[in-house]
Amino acid sequence: MGILKFSVPEIFFGSGSLKYTGMCASHLGAEKIFLVSDPGLEKSGWVNQVFEILDKQHLKWVYYSEISANPRDWQIEKGALLYKEHGCDVVIALGGGSPMDAAKGIALVASNGGRVNDYEGANRIEHPLPPMIFIPSTASSGSDISQFAIITDMERQIKMSIISRTLVPNISIIDPTLLTTKSRELMIAAAVDALSHAIEAHVSKIASPLTEVHSLKAIEHIIKYLPLALENGSLEYLEKLSMAGTSSALAFSNASLGLDHALAHSLGGMLDAVHGTIHPILLPQVMRYNLCECTDKLAEIGRVVLGRDLESPSATALAGIEKLERYFKSLGVSTRLRDIVPDQSVLPRICQMATFDSCLLSNPRTAGVEDMMQICNGVW
Amino acid sequence: MGILKFSVPEIFFGSGSLKYTGMCASHLGAEKIFLVSDPGLEKSGWVNQVFEILDKQHLKWVYYSEISANPRDWQIEKGALLYKEHGCDVVIALGGGSPMDAAKGIALVASNGGRVNDYEGANRIEHPLPPMIFIPSTASSGSDISQFAIITDMERQIKMSIISRTLVPNISIIDPTLLTTKSRELMIAAAVDALSHAIEAHVSKIASPLTEVHSLKAIEHIIKYLPLALENGSLEYLEKLSMAGTSSALAFSNASLGLDHALAHSLGGMLDAVHGTIHPILLPQVMRYNLCECTDKLAEIGRVVLGRDLESPSATALAGIEKLERYFKSLGVSTRLRDIVPDQSVLPRICQMATFDSCLLSNPRTAGVEDMMQICNGVW
Repeated sequence: MGILKFSVPEIFFGSGSLKYTGMCASHLGAEKIFLVSDPGLEKSGWVNQVFEILDKQHLKWVYYSEISANPRDWQIEKGALLYKEHGCDVVIALGGGSPMDAAKGIALVASNGGRVNDYEGANRIEHPLPPMIFIPSTASSGSDISQFAIITDMERQIKMSIISRTLVPNISIIDPTLLTTKSRELMIAAAVDALSHAIEAHVSKIASPLTEVHSLKAIEHIIKYLPLALENGSLEYLEKLSMAGTSSALAFSNASLGLDHALAHSLGGMLDAVHGTIHPILLPQVMRYNLCECTDKLAEIGRVVLGRDLESPSATALAGIEKLERYFKSLGVSTRLRDIVPDQSVLPRICQMATFDSCLLSNPRTAGVEDMMQICNGVW
Repeated sequence: MGILKFSVPEIFFGSGSLKYTGMCASHLGAEKIFLVSDPGLEKSGWVNQVFEILDKQHLKWVYYSEISANPRDWQIEKGALLYKEHGCDVVIALGGGSPMDAAKGIALVASNGGRVNDYEGANRIEHPLPPMIFIPSTASSGSDISQFAIITDMERQIKMSIISRTLVPNISIIDPTLLTTKSRELMIAAAVDALSHAIEAHVSKIASPLTEVHSLKAIEHIIKYLPLALENGSLEYLEKLSMAGTSSALAFSNASLGLDHALAHSLGGMLDAVHGTIHPILLPQVMRYNLCECTDKLAEIGRVVLGRDLESPSATALAGIEKLERYFKSLGVSTRLRDIVPDQSVLPRICQMATFDSCLLSNPRTAGVEDMMQICNGVW
């Protein structure tokens, strides 16, 4: 057994926990906060609520919202410049994966210099980052928990994975009431993303007993509670979904991801596709590809998805994958690649770029361009 | 659902991870380290190994080992004085629960002033503590993970529970090779302690999905791997046991404990008994007492202990408790209170003192002196 590392932010979880934001910032020594969010969160009123909480705590703040889905390298650099110009000392992010990943990038460049692109890959950050408090508005990209930041390199048209222990925020404040203002599409995309994180983390080559318990619980609860949350949207189900997203993030942050995410990052970088829409298409096919190398792990997932064991581990694993495919179809999301990729001729380049993604290192089975092409063509 | 908090140190786990001690201390800005350990660890050679690791990293250190089992308030104050006299800036603890809890007390008094007794109870620490790195030598008191420090008040003859987020060390380095030098008795006492942590955390009133997955996994693995580790002591089983202790600590640090520990702290304070020897006596009886308030949770434990469900949750729960009793007997440890308490007449005072213990707050069923007396007499 190798040496494993497990790293997690301090977590505040529960409906109403948003109110702790000011207190937490003060505990971290904040005087002027750099708050990152986006126009969607402004419209739903949450950004104003955070302004009020910070004002009440007598904390100054600078607000930055020039963040797109799949945040771009230049947006990071612009934010870092603003952070330094204003002499900020703590970063708060409010939103989904995009504002949170952007906030990590801004904290990184503001404290370590250079361009965000300089830090692509694992463990390339030398100096400490300013304290970070993250408030996720989806259940869940997991950026509020994770060691990952995914930023788009606009020149190379690729999503860069930046992975480092120092990207784990100091505090994650997870308030499920923020989910009440999400559209059906956003809720599905976020939950499916969390499900894909849990599944890839569970079969990862660096999974451990500390991560496996969380990945299995996340898979069980997302499959169970997403349909219920979509049906009636009661806070009870949103809390369950939010907690499942947190469990998923605890797992993947420490066990990393796999082939599905390597391809998803490559696709997302080139096509600016919504990240959560890619997994229902690719993930089951990737699980089939991995089956020979992690039958027992996929059988554990199958047992959770099916609620029982079949006659053999591989039968349980396969039936689990099939049930997952039916589950995705029942959500009304696309399960064919042609629906999100305009032209099959870009696939070789997408697969080529995916071979450089750090997530591939922890996939249970090695995969080259040919293998990836077969996967993509299989779901075309 | 209330607002829950989840807090965990950065964890390095694996055989050989001891070597990261120097690097971790440097990352935390150490110049002069206060190292706390005990004569047992000196004899087995581990203290010298840490000296060498720190020397290699060009770090100065001061060594303190005046720590007994059930560390005493005056030992803390003496340590804190030494820490300040020498101008230390980072605390490292190497050992079981006693040196680690003592190190927490020393870090607390050195940074917050006063006497350690001033901080008894929950959340009474105001100022930040110096950075702490803990290296556990047992599997596991969990002090390397937890928000708890248990210190004996010599005047009142009681074990005080001090509970605060700031008592979580910055880094826990868990190297299972340290278990290879433990006696059979110490290994049993530590594993049984970890088992009791997991069981009490699982039924705790503030357990959450983030803690429950760890408590169940810990129960499953301690029951399975302790006998195997005792039988052949191979590193493989010690690693499993060590990981199970870590899971147990992740659970109880965030879900707290219950009635068994309230009584154990009171007994340990008055009689200086080895903490791990008390649980086989009290825990099954406490589980029976709690049964009416947490049948489903005890059935989950029963399912793990038995490997299957019986006809009803209460049948599963009860059979689980009975199997646990047989398990304790098979380890050859005492299961009657008279074996460790010299005189039945002290029981009323022990139960009286236990009513003040913070662990009682999270027990699933309220318990007064009369209830506790009945439990103690039942296992006399």
